[in-house]
Parts: sequence; C-alpha cells; structure tokens
Amino acid sequence: MHDLGVNAIYFCPIFQSTANHRYHTHDYFQVDPILGGNAAFKTLLEAAHARGIRVIIDGVFNHASRGLYQFNHTLENGKASPYLDWFTFRGFPVRAYDEPINYEAWWGLAPLPKFNHRNPQVREFIFRVAEHWIREGIDGWRLDVPGEIDDDEFWREFRRRVKAINPDAYIVGELWQRADRWLAGDQFDAAMNYQFTRACLSFFVEHNDASRNLLQEYSYGDVKPMEAGEFARALDEMLHWYPEEIVYAQLNLLDSHDTARFLSIARGDITALKLALLTMFTYPGAPMIYYGDEIAMEGRKDPDCRRAMVWNPGRVNREMLETTKRLTALRNKYAALRRGTLTTLHANGKTYAFARHYADETIIVTLNAGRESMMLDLRVDPLVPNGARLIDEWTREEIIVQEGFARGIPMPARDGKVWAVQK
Amino acid sequence: MHDLGVNAIYFCPIFQSTANHRYHTHDYFQVDPILGGNAAFKTLLEAAHARGIRVIIDGVFNHASRGLYQFNHTLENGKASPYLDWFTFRGFPVRAYDEPINYEAWWGLAPLPKFNHRNPQVREFIFRVAEHWIREGIDGWRLDVPGEIDDDEFWREFRRRVKAINPDAYIVGELWQRADRWLAGDQFDAAMNYQFTRACLSFFVEHNDASRNLLQEYSYGDVKPMEAGEFARALDEMLHWYPEEIVYAQLNLLDSHDTARFLSIARGDITALKLALLTMFTYPGAPMIYYGDEIAMEGRKDPDCRRAMVWNPGRVNREMLETTKRLTALRNKYAALRRGTLTTLHANGKTYAFARHYADETIIVTLNAGRESMMLDLRVDPLVPNGARLIDEWTREEIIVQEGFARGIPMPARDGKVWAVQK
Repeated sequence: MHDLGVNAIYFCPIFQSTANHRYHTHDYFQVDPILGGNAAFKTLLEAAHARGIRVIIDGVFNHASRGLYQFNHTLENGKASPYLDWFTFRGFPVRAYDEPINYEAWWGLAPLPKFNHRNPQVREFIFRVAEHWIREGIDGWRLDVPGEIDDDEFWREFRRRVKAINPDAYIVGELWQRADRWLAGDQFDAAMNYQFTRACLSFFVEHNDASRNLLQEYSYGDVKPMEAGEFARALDEMLHWYPEEIVYAQLNLLDSHDTARFLSIARGDITALKLALLTMFTYPGAPMIYYGDEIAMEGRKDPDCRRAMVWNPGRVNREMLETTKRLTALRNKYAALRRGTLTTLHANGKTYAFARHYADETIIVTLNAGRESMMLDLRVDPLVPNGARLIDEWTREEIIVQEGFARGIPMPARDGKVWAVQK
Repeated sequence: MHDLGVNAIYFCPIFQSTANHRYHTHDYFQVDPILGGNAAFKTLLEAAHARGIRVIIDGVFNHASRGLYQFNHTLENGKASPYLDWFTFRGFPVRAYDEPINYEAWWGLAPLPKFNHRNPQVREFIFRVAEHWIREGIDGWRLDVPGEIDDDEFWREFRRRVKAINPDAYIVGELWQRADRWLAGDQFDAAMNYQFTRACLSFFVEHNDASRNLLQEYSYGDVKPMEAGEFARALDEMLHWYPEEIVYAQLNLLDSHDTARFLSIARGDITALKLALLTMFTYPGAPMIYYGDEIAMEGRKDPDCRRAMVWNPGRVNREMLETTKRLTALRNKYAALRRGTLTTLHANGKTYAFARHYADETIIVTLNAGRESMMLDLRVDPLVPNGARLIDEWTREEIIVQEGFARGIPMPARDGKVWAVQK
C-alpha cells in the first residue's frame, strides 16, 4: 500500500460473521478469526500507522445477524428474552430459519434482522462499538446503508461520541444519491461519491447493451452518455452541493464491492479507466482505489466484482500499476490537487480541461475522451498570466502562454495530460 | 466470602449465554454482559485475590449453543461452512429450530449441540479457551460432564496446557460415580464428591417418601439409609479409591445446582444439615458450601435449588451462619483437619467418632445422629496416650484419657462435637 502511494485503507466489514462478505455481524467486538482475529488487526493497525496510513472500517449498524448474541437470545427464549425490543417482531416464537420470517429484516432477508434504533439500549450498544474501535486506533468509520436508520439525532450522537475520542476520525456514509440531509456538518464528514462515478461512466465509457446491463440492478441504474459540457457541469455542480469542508472530504470512487468494476463496464477499455482515474486524482475530494483497479482487475456485478485479489505477479497489469502510482505521486506532490479551487477552462464535444489552484500553485488537466487526436488552443486567462509556461508533468514539454491562450496543446486520443504552471 | 472464612469460589458458568444457567455458551471469551462482562470479572478476580480467595470457573466443553459462532456458521451456510466438522450432522440443511434436529446434541436437546472432539480444530479451540482464562487469572476449572468427552488424551492435553501456565491450577470434574479413570493423576486433580454427599444423606437424613422423591431424576437416585457402621466404611473406603494427593483435593459437597438442597431433602431438619456440614469440614478433601446453605436456604429439585441468593438480612438464618463460620474457622485453625490421616474410632447404631491426626496435632470428632442423647466411652488408644486431655473446641469441657479410653463423652441428640487433644 505504501509503495502504491496511498495514505488510507478502507476495509469492507472485518467483524466476526458467518457470511463471506461479513455484512451479517455475529460479534461487533471481534475481528473475524478468518482474518486473524483482534490480534492480527492490532498488528495491521500498528504497521499501517507506522507508515502514515490511516485505517477506516465498515460499520454495519442497520442490521445484524441471526447469530448475534441479542438476536440469538430472542430465538432461544422467545417472549422471555430481555432483548425483544432490540428488533421488531411480528409474532412468537421467532421464526428465523423458516419462511415467512416474523421480524423486520434488511430488504426482508432472513439473515439480516434490523435493529430497532428507537431502543436506547440499541443506540448505546452501537455507540459503544463505535467508540471501542476508535479507542483501539481505527481512523474512521464507513457507514453501511446509514440512510435506512431514519434518525438524524442517532447519527449526530454517533458523530459526537466518535469525535470526542478522535476529532480527526473520518465518518463517511454509503449514500448513493445527493445527501444534503447527512452532509450539513452535524452528521457525516463525507459520502461515497457515486455521483462522481456516474459522471465518469457517462463521459469516459462508450456504452452498449453489455455495459448498460452491468449498470442495472442494485447498482447505478441508467447512466446516460454525456458530452464534455454536461460532464463539466456535473463535476462543477457537485462542488456546490455541500459545505466546502465536506466537498474536499468526499469519498470519490470509480467502483466498489457493490458495483461492476469500471473497467468491466467499459468492456476492458483501459483508456476509459485511465481517463477516469486521472480525473479522480485531480478532482477535489479523497480518491479511492477499489482493490485491484490498480492492476486492471475485471469484475462484473456482485459477487463477481468481489473476486479475490490477484497477487500473482504474472497476472498483474504493470502498466496500469505504474499509471496508478504516477497519479498517487502526482496528488501527493501538489497541494493544489488536494486543496485547490477548480475552474473549468474548456468543455466541448469529447474534450475537457480544468485548472486546480491553491496559493501560488496552478495545475491544468486536459482530457480527450474522443477517438481522434487533436490540438487544443486553451484559454487560460485570467488564471494564468501571459509569459507563464505550462509544463507537461511527465514529458516536460512546455507551452508558453500568449495573449491569454496556451495554444497547440496536444490532445492524444483517449488520453489526458497534467500541466504544472510555471510563472 | 472473606467474612464467611472461605478461600475459594467456584462459579457456575459465567460466559455469555442466552440461557439463565449459561450452560449454552454463546461466546467462550466473554463473560456474560448480565454479569458485567469481562471488566466486572477482572475486578472481581482482583478483589478476590487481594483477599486470598481463589476463583474456579465452570468449563462447559462437551456442548455449546446454537448461537456459538461456529455452530451458527453451519446454520447459515449449511454444507458450505468450514465448521461442519466441529459438530456431528446427520443431514443438511441444518435443522436446529424445528424437531427433529439433525445433529448430535447433549441428551438430544436442540439448544445444546455437542462438539466433535475428534476434530483437532475443536480440541485446539477448547484448549485455547482453557489457557486464555488461566492467563486472565482464574485458579482452576470445574469441568461440566467431562465423562461425555470419551477421550483420555483430550483431558491429558487439557491438563498439560493448563498446568503449563499455572501448575497450581485446580481441575475438578463433574463425575457422579467413582472416577478412577480420570483420577489417576494424569487428568483431573479431583472430582465433585457426590459419593460423600450420598453417604451423608444416608446417615444423617431421616428418609420418607418426600425425601426419596427429591432424590430421584437426574440426581442421586436411590439413597438407602445407613447405620453408623456402613457410614464409617463408606467414608473410609473413599479415602482409598484414589492416590492420596487426589483424596485430599476432592471437592466434597452436600448439594449443588443439580440436586435438591440437603436441607430440603431433610425436610427442613437443620440438625441433619449441621451434622453433615460438621462431617464435611472435618473430613479429608475440600469442603464446598453451595451458596445459601450457610443461611439455611431451601430448594427442591432443579430449578428450585437455583433460587436467587437471599441477601435480605431479615431472612437469613443467623444461627446457621454462625455455625458455618465456626466450621470454616475450625478447619482453618487445624492442619490435622486439612492434611491429617483419618482413623475411625467408633461406629455403632447412630453414633460415630473419628480422629484426624497430623504431626503432633490430633482432633477427634464425635457425632450422634440419633434422637436420644447419651454418653460414649470412646477407645482412643493407641492414638491418644493416657493422661492426655480431650478439650471440647467450643465449650472447653475436658475429658482425661485413662486406660485407653475417653469416658463419658456427652453425645447430645442430633449433634456433634469436636475435641482437640492436649498431651
């Protein structure tokens, strides 16, 4: 990870569970023995922190499992259990292993009994789990389906309890739509920015029936192709949805355990993935690499997108790996990419250019999603003064700004460039 | 406890469980939250140790519960679970909440799936539980139904692993019959000595249909009344069943969570309980007071014998409490009672007398289980020389030994006396 240039890891659920994805939690205080248990996690946390890498874990607090102590108690004792009010039952004895079940469950799925978050004991239990792992050293929580806990005060209290222990802890919600309700500053620090993903899928991927099929069902749904103008507007609008601190903390991503991989939706067109990755790494917010994207792993819809990581060096796409490392290094190098304002400079047809600016640092990104190479005369005033030079970050090619334009910018087909401005 | 004069506590199961008796373990590494969890237990251990009191806990390793992680895994995943070989299944999917169940369970009871102890993973799991709690500071294990794990090597390994961490740890098995197989020195340090209990019930309790009824079903079964001669032989024989170290470590008891209380079997006759308690506290082996016996709590068969402890001072039998304290003090005072040899001096009809002897200390106990007071001429030679005095431990009354006899020992009805020999 360190070699890849990343400075945080977000783990899908790690707590003891009988499901391979671990969204059925059996014990919120134990790391799954298959992962080495609490001891292995402690070692990992220490090793990560020693390398300046933060660790975020997945908090599944909407529902638990049939084996969770408190739910199992209701199965074993029925109406005599003191934990009845931890869930919502429609009858007794509890029917959990025969349909129809008689309790509320996530999407009606028997293995996923939903907590009753109105119960103060349940709230306290969850808050203590949250506090416990923050005390153990995690650096934040990714919250699974938090919108299904329809209670702002629950999440406000969650935030207070977590931040009281570690004010720097990162709280990011799985919210697939615009999420003003949770991103006003009193609940989450960020959301998983699937809006950004959708925009990238719209602009960089050449769609056909196969790609459209991969977008459907518990995933993005319809994603309409976009021209550069729409794309630029979409990216710009998102920057004004939420308070600035939140915009700059958004979790941007190109795919996840819940979606077909970007590369597979693009039917293996690695140029689409590279263009999107370049955009993500130069756009405001925290770029997230879904494991394996950096070596061009493919994966269709869940569960195919959850394939085991490819460790075999012979099966690694080295060029993709080098590209990814170049992008993490780029972002680590320029504060403008992490903290700078974004200004759209050009958007037309399949070409798009924008600048990031912070203090005396200006970075310009030029992208050509089209199939034909071309040259671009890019208007850069008033941001960049005449006489300044645009230096290609990797080839060191230079273009001098004259009369407000950087003329003759090479725009190779299906590729992008990053230019540092030297005044 | 300290005030009562005891120096060890044996707790019935304390691990997280959905059953009030906790013989259905949900998690072997967590103390039940109802008991305050691991934190409360740690505090208790420290407080006990600070007072010189050791703590033994109940290890239920024959069977677990339907909520145990590994069993729950088989319920959730059926044949795909890696834990199938932790139990013994007769079909799939696993049927655990509908009769007939399709796995081996203790006495066929659905909530108590039996471990497959032939599986090395199961063995290792149990050994690690045993080691974990010894490391946490417990002073030994009481083993629930260990005879149902029909594997001497399992228990030998258990002993090696426990003793490697704490050579003084006490390992005591729940074995209701003579237990030579487990008490040769390579497995347990002791057994729960229900044979001793049976003998006391035979000699001190006046039986009728009501008492006989309380002895039946998952308990002692038939207990025939005994005269003093038989009682003396029974007590003497037990001392030769096992190696001496084991005899002196046996867990002697008058009742438990599995049996009607001694006092209830005696239909409230407190003289029976007091005579038996005096015998237990002056007999080789570790006397165990089942909570509440010291204040004359009653309780018929399980679950009545598991009533909550009476803490209300107004409902405490103070005389019984004082008697019990007198007996713990007595045993703490005389090494002869803890480590001495036992010699039967007299056994006839309803009267019985024996001596305990260690180094230069000799203690004589005289008991009259009959309904009539009498005087006893007790032959004490060659153990006690002529001219020595027998001093009543509590009244200080003295009897001088002459011609090998202590003559005129008062034997009040349904009572006993303890005499210290002064040479």
